[in-house]
Amino acid sequence: MNDILNQRGILTVVSGFSGAGKGTVMKRLMEKYSGYALSVSVTTRAPRENEEEGIHYFFRSREEFQQLIREDALIEFAEYQGNYYGTPRRYVEDCLSEGKDVILEIEMQGAEKVRAKYPDAVLIFVTPENFDQLRKRLVNRGTETAEQIAGRLKRAAEESVYMKDYDYIAVNMDGAVEECVDRIHDILQCEHTRISRNSEFIERIREEAGKGAE
Amino acid sequence: MNDILNQRGILTVVSGFSGAGKGTVMKRLMEKYSGYALSVSVTTRAPRENEEEGIHYFFRSREEFQQLIREDALIEFAEYQGNYYGTPRRYVEDCLSEGKDVILEIEMQGAEKVRAKYPDAVLIFVTPENFDQLRKRLVNRGTETAEQIAGRLKRAAEESVYMKDYDYIAVNMDGAVEECVDRIHDILQCEHTRISRNSEFIERIREEAGKGAE
Repeated sequence: MNDILNQRGILTVVSGFSGAGKGTVMKRLMEKYSGYALSVSVTTRAPRENEEEGIHYFFRSREEFQQLIREDALIEFAEYQGNYYGTPRRYVEDCLSEGKDVILEIEMQGAEKVRAKYPDAVLIFVTPENFDQLRKRLVNRGTETAEQIAGRLKRAAEESVYMKDYDYIAVNMDGAVEECVDRIHDILQCEHTRISRNSEFIERIREEAGKGAE
Repeated sequence: MNDILNQRGILTVVSGFSGAGKGTVMKRLMEKYSGYALSVSVTTRAPRENEEEGIHYFFRSREEFQQLIREDALIEFAEYQGNYYGTPRRYVEDCLSEGKDVILEIEMQGAEKVRAKYPDAVLIFVTPENFDQLRKRLVNRGTETAEQIAGRLKRAAEESVYMKDYDYIAVNMDGAVEECVDRIHDILQCEHTRISRNSEFIERIREEAGKGAE
């Protein structure tokens, strides 16, 4: 039924604890369903090995980034551990007009700013079932020192304060990535049928009703 | 994931134009999915042929109905074409506590009253794709005179004003009842993952995070 309803894309923020599996969930969402566009952030931090320009990030100098800020070319930006991160406005707005739901995988700071500018954005928080699972996942990755893991957990504790500012929880339970992916897809499909996003459809039905009842 | 989230049922109002196929959609929703309870209204109107006490309605006298009003035993009630219709509170609240989503299939007048008393209720409006389809369905039923059909269409035109007060549109397209049923199910599944309905889960994660990061 969505093809006769609101055709404008929905701006969607996906955040979550580091280690919640956001990256995997987003990758599967893009593979499994069409109609989504994943926004690529701009950053001033140096590319890591295997990171590609335009795929993982747009890598820019501080001067270039500040120019983007001055031109109001970013929907939101934040400074984090000494580097800037931001969301380019143009790509997002083009995709929304084309009817694609645009996913921003961003930090909580940025999420608040997006909400302020786009009140009809949908904010989804990806979380493991419990905190112990988060710890286990970080340990099992085996890529970080105990100190780094402790740092991530501390940060997750700080971030948990922001959960209440989101619209939906998507629980990424162990061994159930697909369920989490499908739920995010369902949330957005249902959001397209919200009354507040369908004033054109309602207006048309009302007009037809007015004529049809004469 | 819903079994680890909010366990309280969601009060759900389903309204729609007469001829939109609400009855069929509700019947299929109950058959196809578990976890729903359909509320049975109380009315003072006389039973029609094939209508059973406690299944289609609870049939009561005007005096009995007024007693229910005085006892605050109804969530909402309205007078329509000289008869009272109301929703019994007890059944609804018992089901919600048991974790069932309770569906009220009621008129727009009643929907507004439910929203006022239960701000977290979900209001869904079932509509055909266009008004012409509504007219065709009423004609094809073959059970009503041209005058009665004109009356229903006129009423639908009046009712279309209330669409904007609902949360979601469920379009019941010709030959696609299952899609409409599945969408209503999805809407409620997703509503269970709303942040505003999951303060307990969030509180638990925050506590675990606080301890886990020490």
